[in-house]
Amino acid sequence: MELVSENRSFGGRQAVYTHPSNTCGCEMTFAVYLPPQAEERKVPVLWYLSGLTCTHENAMTKGGFQEHASREGLAVIYPDTSPRGEGVADDEAYDLGQGAGFYVNATRDPWKPHYRMYDYITSELRSLVLDHLPLEDCHGITGHSMGGHGAITIALRNAEMFESVSAFAPIAHPTNSDWGRKQLSAYLGDDETAWSNHDSTLLLEEHGWKGDILVDQGASDQFLELLKPESLAAAMARRRQPGQVRMQKGYDHSYYFVNTFASDHVVWHADRLN
Amino acid sequence: MELVSENRSFGGRQAVYTHPSNTCGCEMTFAVYLPPQAEERKVPVLWYLSGLTCTHENAMTKGGFQEHASREGLAVIYPDTSPRGEGVADDEAYDLGQGAGFYVNATRDPWKPHYRMYDYITSELRSLVLDHLPLEDCHGITGHSMGGHGAITIALRNAEMFESVSAFAPIAHPTNSDWGRKQLSAYLGDDETAWSNHDSTLLLEEHGWKGDILVDQGASDQFLELLKPESLAAAMARRRQPGQVRMQKGYDHSYYFVNTFASDHVVWHADRLN
Repeated sequence: MELVSENRSFGGRQAVYTHPSNTCGCEMTFAVYLPPQAEERKVPVLWYLSGLTCTHENAMTKGGFQEHASREGLAVIYPDTSPRGEGVADDEAYDLGQGAGFYVNATRDPWKPHYRMYDYITSELRSLVLDHLPLEDCHGITGHSMGGHGAITIALRNAEMFESVSAFAPIAHPTNSDWGRKQLSAYLGDDETAWSNHDSTLLLEEHGWKGDILVDQGASDQFLELLKPESLAAAMARRRQPGQVRMQKGYDHSYYFVNTFASDHVVWHADRLN
Repeated sequence: MELVSENRSFGGRQAVYTHPSNTCGCEMTFAVYLPPQAEERKVPVLWYLSGLTCTHENAMTKGGFQEHASREGLAVIYPDTSPRGEGVADDEAYDLGQGAGFYVNATRDPWKPHYRMYDYITSELRSLVLDHLPLEDCHGITGHSMGGHGAITIALRNAEMFESVSAFAPIAHPTNSDWGRKQLSAYLGDDETAWSNHDSTLLLEEHGWKGDILVDQGASDQFLELLKPESLAAAMARRRQPGQVRMQKGYDHSYYFVNTFASDHVVWHADRLN
């Protein structure tokens, strides 16, 4: 792990690191916020997975999580959204390839060699940060849009790894959306049975979640037709899954939406992690 | 005024407008945050002046003022830092020309025709927003770096226009700094007597300020030698000026510093404006 930058923020440290990734076969970058409490003791971890086109940097500068994480004593990890660099396959479209890893392990060329964000998040990066930073092995996970999809699908498939899960405007039913079918087909192939492990709605109906779930969704989101919050809301109701999908009047898909509800999500996770 | 974008944020509206500026002789862009209270009544205004290289956009996305302005019922205006566009003089250096207006009215060519940020802020933009937005004629002013310089110098020269003033890491003594001498010389000419109207330390010693002043400064700021907070602190003490210069341990010059203390400044202004 090599330190790229460090800034004092709300009494803690906002740091960016790079490291060689065996899982992704390239150099990876991530950001971490360490609250002031981390100078005295290990602190629980909130993972924040970002959306299409984002790097580790977007939520770090625009999400506004540091203030609340400082108050609540949580670290926040901001991974990148895909492998990157020369020699890593890419696509001209904003929603495939670099910046659009979709938190899966690709099984199809040209993506297979590097696009392993599922393993990267759940195994390699998790081990790395636990080994090198003052973190408790106690985790919550959230994310925005494609990252909300990543947060819910990863939590539901790894209930032993996470104590809490929430999401901001997640891609909620990708097997039935143009934000999903294209990418799952490219990364996993045309056999749709392999896709269901990466669909929050289908996973929730099948497995449920051990705790409660918080989802915030802007009611004026310009991508509602692609996100399909109604599918996830219906699945939660059918499953009798504790939790809430909050439709937030007037909010769009931007970081102004994420920022507004960042405090609620940090408190939600802190209540379940502490 | 033409609306460029609008996002719901903390129950209010984060908007961006453009308008033709007579003062600057070009199209100008500014951002404004209107808190939820502005839907019911006129609200007081906090002006936030940005630093070198910034536009209206930096503090709007990274400053974190919306949350606190929403709670306190203040509007926040984020002007641009210079005139812009083809036909507007510029310089290759980051610290002169576009993005570096220094909040003066230039009297020297090639800057004279457009670089009139002092009049733009104190007169044209002020009238425009009071005419078109639900704002009380009750103003506080703050800013960062070059914008902290702008905030203090504009407030001290226009005490009747502002009820409160604060600054984040202001360029505090530009007549005695490489952040200042170069620009004041270019915009105002080599007669230094014209410069003293644009130097916070000199203005404070001469005029003082009717209220108290809040200045935050990162103790690990990489630009301390250019900012010269010690000159301003000494002037405040010599003048017996109520207020405080807070040296904040570990903080640098970045928006992580601004963001961390945004709440304190918004509350400071709200206490004096309401």
